[in-house]
Amino acid sequence: MRFSKLFLPTFKETPKDVVLKSHEYLVRGGFIQQIGSGIYNFLPLGKRVLDKVRQIVKEEMDNAGANEVALGFVTPSFLWQKSGRFERYGKELLRFKDRKDNDFVLGPTHEEVITELVKANIKSYKQLPIHLYQINLKFRDEIRPRFGLMRAREFIMKDGYSFHSSTEDLKREFDLMEATYSRIFTRLGLDFRAVFADSGAIGGNGSKEFMVLAKSGEDTICVCDSCQYGANLEAATRIKKLPNTEAPVASFAKFHTPKVQTIESLSEFFKVEPFWTLKAVVKKALFDGGKNALVYFFLRGSDSLNETKALNAIVGANELVEASEEDLKSAGLVQGFIGPFALRNLTSSPYIYFDKELENASNLICGANEVDYHFVGVDLSTFEGLEFKDLVEVKEGDFCPVCKKGKLYFTKGIEAGHIFQLGTKYSSAMEATFLDEEGKAKPFIMGCYGIGISRLLSAIIEQHHDERGMIWTRASAPFCVHLIVSNIKEQSQMQMGIKLYENLQSKGIECLLDDRAERYGAKIADFELIGLPFGIVVGKGLEKGEIELIRRKDLAKESLGIQDFDALISKIFEVCQCDSF
Amino acid sequence: MRFSKLFLPTFKETPKDVVLKSHEYLVRGGFIQQIGSGIYNFLPLGKRVLDKVRQIVKEEMDNAGANEVALGFVTPSFLWQKSGRFERYGKELLRFKDRKDNDFVLGPTHEEVITELVKANIKSYKQLPIHLYQINLKFRDEIRPRFGLMRAREFIMKDGYSFHSSTEDLKREFDLMEATYSRIFTRLGLDFRAVFADSGAIGGNGSKEFMVLAKSGEDTICVCDSCQYGANLEAATRIKKLPNTEAPVASFAKFHTPKVQTIESLSEFFKVEPFWTLKAVVKKALFDGGKNALVYFFLRGSDSLNETKALNAIVGANELVEASEEDLKSAGLVQGFIGPFALRNLTSSPYIYFDKELENASNLICGANEVDYHFVGVDLSTFEGLEFKDLVEVKEGDFCPVCKKGKLYFTKGIEAGHIFQLGTKYSSAMEATFLDEEGKAKPFIMGCYGIGISRLLSAIIEQHHDERGMIWTRASAPFCVHLIVSNIKEQSQMQMGIKLYENLQSKGIECLLDDRAERYGAKIADFELIGLPFGIVVGKGLEKGEIELIRRKDLAKESLGIQDFDALISKIFEVCQCDSF
Repeated sequence: MRFSKLFLPTFKETPKDVVLKSHEYLVRGGFIQQIGSGIYNFLPLGKRVLDKVRQIVKEEMDNAGANEVALGFVTPSFLWQKSGRFERYGKELLRFKDRKDNDFVLGPTHEEVITELVKANIKSYKQLPIHLYQINLKFRDEIRPRFGLMRAREFIMKDGYSFHSSTEDLKREFDLMEATYSRIFTRLGLDFRAVFADSGAIGGNGSKEFMVLAKSGEDTICVCDSCQYGANLEAATRIKKLPNTEAPVASFAKFHTPKVQTIESLSEFFKVEPFWTLKAVVKKALFDGGKNALVYFFLRGSDSLNETKALNAIVGANELVEASEEDLKSAGLVQGFIGPFALRNLTSSPYIYFDKELENASNLICGANEVDYHFVGVDLSTFEGLEFKDLVEVKEGDFCPVCKKGKLYFTKGIEAGHIFQLGTKYSSAMEATFLDEEGKAKPFIMGCYGIGISRLLSAIIEQHHDERGMIWTRASAPFCVHLIVSNIKEQSQMQMGIKLYENLQSKGIECLLDDRAERYGAKIADFELIGLPFGIVVGKGLEKGEIELIRRKDLAKESLGIQDFDALISKIFEVCQCDSF
Repeated sequence: MRFSKLFLPTFKETPKDVVLKSHEYLVRGGFIQQIGSGIYNFLPLGKRVLDKVRQIVKEEMDNAGANEVALGFVTPSFLWQKSGRFERYGKELLRFKDRKDNDFVLGPTHEEVITELVKANIKSYKQLPIHLYQINLKFRDEIRPRFGLMRAREFIMKDGYSFHSSTEDLKREFDLMEATYSRIFTRLGLDFRAVFADSGAIGGNGSKEFMVLAKSGEDTICVCDSCQYGANLEAATRIKKLPNTEAPVASFAKFHTPKVQTIESLSEFFKVEPFWTLKAVVKKALFDGGKNALVYFFLRGSDSLNETKALNAIVGANELVEASEEDLKSAGLVQGFIGPFALRNLTSSPYIYFDKELENASNLICGANEVDYHFVGVDLSTFEGLEFKDLVEVKEGDFCPVCKKGKLYFTKGIEAGHIFQLGTKYSSAMEATFLDEEGKAKPFIMGCYGIGISRLLSAIIEQHHDERGMIWTRASAPFCVHLIVSNIKEQSQMQMGIKLYENLQSKGIECLLDDRAERYGAKIADFELIGLPFGIVVGKGLEKGEIELIRRKDLAKESLGIQDFDALISKIFEVCQCDSF
């Protein structure tokens, strides 16, 4: 493509209200332009990158046996009413009426449409499994669209949905998708982690997020320094923590502990590390219909409660809020002295949970539910019917639950993909069933799998840029080579530019030939901003029989002789094929 | 692709409320399924055809130098207010509000978005011309969506917009697009005509529609039996009609013609063919703001008035309605005796038009604006200031205006593409200007070019089907070969099926391998319904060393020997490459 024939408006000025480099560079580089809050036009270069990403995703999805479809974007509301999400989804679901006063939504996701489609067409277990996907428009009416393509309202997503007759088969597909997504992100040249994600809120059993590692990422993820393990904080686990000191062995006894109301002071009072103390966290859980209840979490004094894990522990709760002093008082409790003893008698709450690392823990020190008193020598194995759940917030330095030897550390990531084991959440709600081998109707067991196609443009740049502009990876770049003719009025330069252009194009190397009547400096600035993997400058060096090859990644330059033209083309071809990233 | 792995639900029953075969077959063949009135899911086969069509359109548009973009679908209303179409477009424009109460529309077309985009980025004539196009979703809230993809509400369109500094350059691009569209429709294997269209209503000077010829087409078009000329009825022209008889030469005189109120009786009364009589048609034109006026059209008695041509003749009129007897009476006129004499004196209407074939006509007979009287020997060249316009409805048998020797006839067509010379309609309204060579700001001169991508699926089938199902053209077919293993339990059949499948696929022939545990009859019925260009049956003939090749177009069958397998593959490859259509 010749630059002079391309609609590619570049800008020197940083647009206002821009936080992320990807947003700045995509706009300045003429890849996208906003037409409304969170709604963008993709200009020719942006469209080319979209197509590259889309093609890679399509190839890998097709190879994995999924079938591509294109589902209706404008969706009748009754489908969303069937699933119950019409009311629940909130204001991100854009609702409107057509000319005949029928209710519609703009599809923010397509579980409802696909479930209805499969329900209407698949009757028997013999027709399963099936995996349908699309790469299509979505709309979510975000309250605060921002960061360019990172959090847009109108965006392009790959959304796939699989249907199975057993959870084992769903698990097989889930694993296949994890491998497929890994291939996709690897082909795109991205440094990423597939992390365990909390799937409590959306339902289903298993869920993984594909995180593109980048300093600017909104999500903190916990990764292992020695294996591929990664998880969101709310899903992160660790191998059971061990104490640094011997257990403070003691017989069960009540101690007077005046004003000892914190783990720190308790630990000091008894001269034990916080590991041996029992921390109580009391929250108020809010349920549908205005109901609420006090809920109790116990964990080691050395640990912190992860709020999401805590919320997931309370079935049916929508939110956990702080319990007020008033709340505690009316439950007969005093902050600082709360312990598991007699708790069931003191309150009517059925919501008492212990962190699972406390299973069979002994030699603990805990509150006595009495002002200024604690118990020592507490042995949890003597209690009956305790419920244990994973409640702790993993810390940097904890040990990896997978390889057991690596240490966990935190880093930032951008969510670019998400795979879920949905189970029967939608099929049950929408009465979508198949006949099993015994002729019995059963709800489909479903998985769903998303990739933020347009968001990936931002993610790629967040991971690959410098202070001069974008640095596209080879697979995502709109063109491979940026061929700059320094001065188009110099006939020899222009001729060599065209000769290189035609020869490289014929070898399948996509080139952008900068044949504009612009200064050399402006052209180089655009090369650096637009960020194609390789630049070739046909300039003054031509008099000495040389052209210059620039690698955008590190701006390393190399002079190449033009005497043996075939060798020159081969050399450039080789460089373009290299797997630098 | 293996049929057993494909989501391809086929049906024997014709869906209710289906009029067109394309609608019936696309649904029965599992290409599309409706999710709401005029909104469809594209299932895997439908998506494949869409992609084939899209790819051909993209290649030809790119070759013509147009740049592909993807414009925002959800469009802020203020852009439509700028162009004035927010009010004018009517209810097909779906309007809604987002969560912050801002006004949006779902883009039914993108002149506003593109004009705003180009206005913001193109400043100088040096950056012109530019042609931007997209292949993207559209929504038009049709009052009566019907005929499947033919008149859907949500649909896929290729819409391109070009920007020029001169009308000559626009004309050049318009011609380039006519050639490009012709290549696209030819590659798709369609019998089509590029017809002149009336562009009065949408503004602009020149406009052509690409009509796919099909008996079921909604539009009547007028085509030449000897050249490529074609036009909509309202745009059709002919070479000037000549009389069959000598002129009834007579001196100007008034005749008493009692009760002679029709062309037929007038022609009989004077024993002349209707060609020599002057027909008057009086209408009432309605203008904005409730204004109306009587308008007069004169043409030869042998011709009929084309209503669209008549409407276009009256600048500013929105509609022409019948003039009542009352209207005529108050203008002092009597039906049956209306003529051009003294008309200006009788009424104050400035709207008097003569068909252009009447220019300098003489020896005419016309009404005398007096009950029971006509004039003979009327010579229009003696009038001053007459206005001549093309007003006649072309008839079958009239002579072609282009080749002059062919005869015109009427046929039916489906509009699949439309190219317009818009001029400055949108750029003026939206104040989108560039600086010309003298540094003066001028509105962009625009063209726009559409192809109904999803509608083409219907159009292809309307032109190519039989009573058993669809017949895809080679370029549009979702696969090239339908490979039927008659009985998958016969190991030899299945082995041969897979061997053929693998060999053909490796040669680039896309195959659908029907490996389902279904009866042979059901498989053949699906082959005929789905309509891939070629079928191969691996069945009982295999015992005699034979397979069967079926050409879907005419269901012609041929036995092929498998002894020389390489020769067999070559033979099939050759057949698949043939240009049957």
